[in-house]
Amino acid sequence: MPSSEFQLIEHHFSRLGATREDVLLGVGDDCALLQVPPGKVLAVSLDTLVEGVHFLPGVDPEALGHKALAVNLSDLAAMGAEPAWATLALTLPRIDEAWIEAFCRGFAQLANRYRVQLVGGDTTRGPRAISVQVHGFVEAGQALRRDGAGIGDLVYVSGTLGDAGLALRAAAGEYDPGPHLIDIQLRLDRPQPRVEQALALRHLASAAIDLSDGLLADLGHICQRSGCGARLELPSIPLSPALDQFIRERGDWGVPLASGDDYELCLVVPRDRQAEFERVAAGLETPLRRVGEIEAEPGIRCFDAAGNPLRVGRGGYDHFGQA
Amino acid sequence: MPSSEFQLIEHHFSRLGATREDVLLGVGDDCALLQVPPGKVLAVSLDTLVEGVHFLPGVDPEALGHKALAVNLSDLAAMGAEPAWATLALTLPRIDEAWIEAFCRGFAQLANRYRVQLVGGDTTRGPRAISVQVHGFVEAGQALRRDGAGIGDLVYVSGTLGDAGLALRAAAGEYDPGPHLIDIQLRLDRPQPRVEQALALRHLASAAIDLSDGLLADLGHICQRSGCGARLELPSIPLSPALDQFIRERGDWGVPLASGDDYELCLVVPRDRQAEFERVAAGLETPLRRVGEIEAEPGIRCFDAAGNPLRVGRGGYDHFGQA
Repeated sequence: MPSSEFQLIEHHFSRLGATREDVLLGVGDDCALLQVPPGKVLAVSLDTLVEGVHFLPGVDPEALGHKALAVNLSDLAAMGAEPAWATLALTLPRIDEAWIEAFCRGFAQLANRYRVQLVGGDTTRGPRAISVQVHGFVEAGQALRRDGAGIGDLVYVSGTLGDAGLALRAAAGEYDPGPHLIDIQLRLDRPQPRVEQALALRHLASAAIDLSDGLLADLGHICQRSGCGARLELPSIPLSPALDQFIRERGDWGVPLASGDDYELCLVVPRDRQAEFERVAAGLETPLRRVGEIEAEPGIRCFDAAGNPLRVGRGGYDHFGQA
Repeated sequence: MPSSEFQLIEHHFSRLGATREDVLLGVGDDCALLQVPPGKVLAVSLDTLVEGVHFLPGVDPEALGHKALAVNLSDLAAMGAEPAWATLALTLPRIDEAWIEAFCRGFAQLANRYRVQLVGGDTTRGPRAISVQVHGFVEAGQALRRDGAGIGDLVYVSGTLGDAGLALRAAAGEYDPGPHLIDIQLRLDRPQPRVEQALALRHLASAAIDLSDGLLADLGHICQRSGCGARLELPSIPLSPALDQFIRERGDWGVPLASGDDYELCLVVPRDRQAEFERVAAGLETPLRRVGEIEAEPGIRCFDAAGNPLRVGRGGYDHFGQA
């Protein structure tokens, strides 16, 4: 059993995920040496998960390994970038072989699916936290930035919204989802990055973001960077059976629109590409749904089935704002 | 004053360090978009600093900002790579404007010196920790790996060894360095990455590593990866006046050879390049000194002035081993 940091790193991290030819040197030297394909630019993103803030102390380490990579792959997807490499900064209070093995299993399963190789890591002692950085490729002209939305463009989201947020409410004892609990818990614990959707649709979108902070906040980022606003048609928001029941019982649109952790894609599409976009999207495993439209007036406005404006609570998850 | 995570990131991190033309998109989107020069490979490395493990709670945040970047630039130097970009995962118990400003000041000063641009960041709430990843460029054939040392090659180190370790002893009340305290404290708080030295000498070395865990442990990594051993001549180890006095008083070679945090370079040089290496090295600001030689027999052997073998304590700093 490894007893030192060096052995721990060597043992677990030296062969995690796919084996890629563009990795000239992986884990184990001062740096990794990596080859970006000619004509592509490098897209990088990082996300940190802290125990007690982003996950509970007792959480399944295999799910955590999955989620730590998934939330980062979601950022690459939102940029229209193809995943390639990951690095991992892992801080642990002590060496726990079983915990680390399970964490690596969850990480590796998702990494293998998207041909991601772990190329660097740093393991330190301290309060449990996980910081993953992902690296992907995209042609400069095909990158999906936040600042490309134009007035009149249509707003689409993938999957269903609010399931992870409802799972958090259920965990806090604020709502009983009944038999839907397993489904929404899975959405919270094992978010699926929408990589295939992004790669299939990136040439048709004008802007994109992934929904980590809730649609209101994240679409708000697109609007802010693009100098515009948006309207959302609440009856069009895609809801799971669990959320559909919750909205019928409670009428609280804050959960699907202002909860974090969905990791669905929000894509903005010019009208002249609508038909082509919807044709390609219809062939994908996870559907995308049109939920609104970009407008000139700043801010996000929500409308109910009768066309009446509806005020929806808080503006999304904020790590410090909720402290 | 920023009150939310989004504003905090925008305010402090959007213009930190140099402004580089190869950064197509920096902080503020889902990913940064970066351009690696044609013909170069990307070198990446990351290091995490945790409060209470790598730094004390009351440490000067400006020095910490410097050190968090410096220890990473030291890894790029050890690879012979030219620094380019950095990302920062910052976990803080609360928003403290003055602390963040001072941290950014220390980070930016060093970043500007080496033309490093901050291209991505994630700020989270939790126990204070800093994880920096650096990205640099090197021609594939010029990278200084750990596995290139050959039998008979000479071992060089830059600067002086053990000052940071002695500062830790002084802080623990185990030793009084007298008037040398300021000098050794500066070595601990503000390590200088040996970037210029590495770039000037990389074409002459067969292997390299930076001294983060102590010469015995780090040269041990080179030997392990290169399938060899080494001998060290203790009288040749470069010592500051503080260390010279400490060795005369205590005779404890564990401090210069097995303390962490020096961040000097250890370069291994084939004999047929010795003359050229020493000629180039002599023109550099921080000198390098020959301290030993690569041998076939595994392990590191130390010899005193009389040529007698000397056993030197523990094998270097280990985050978990010392827990």
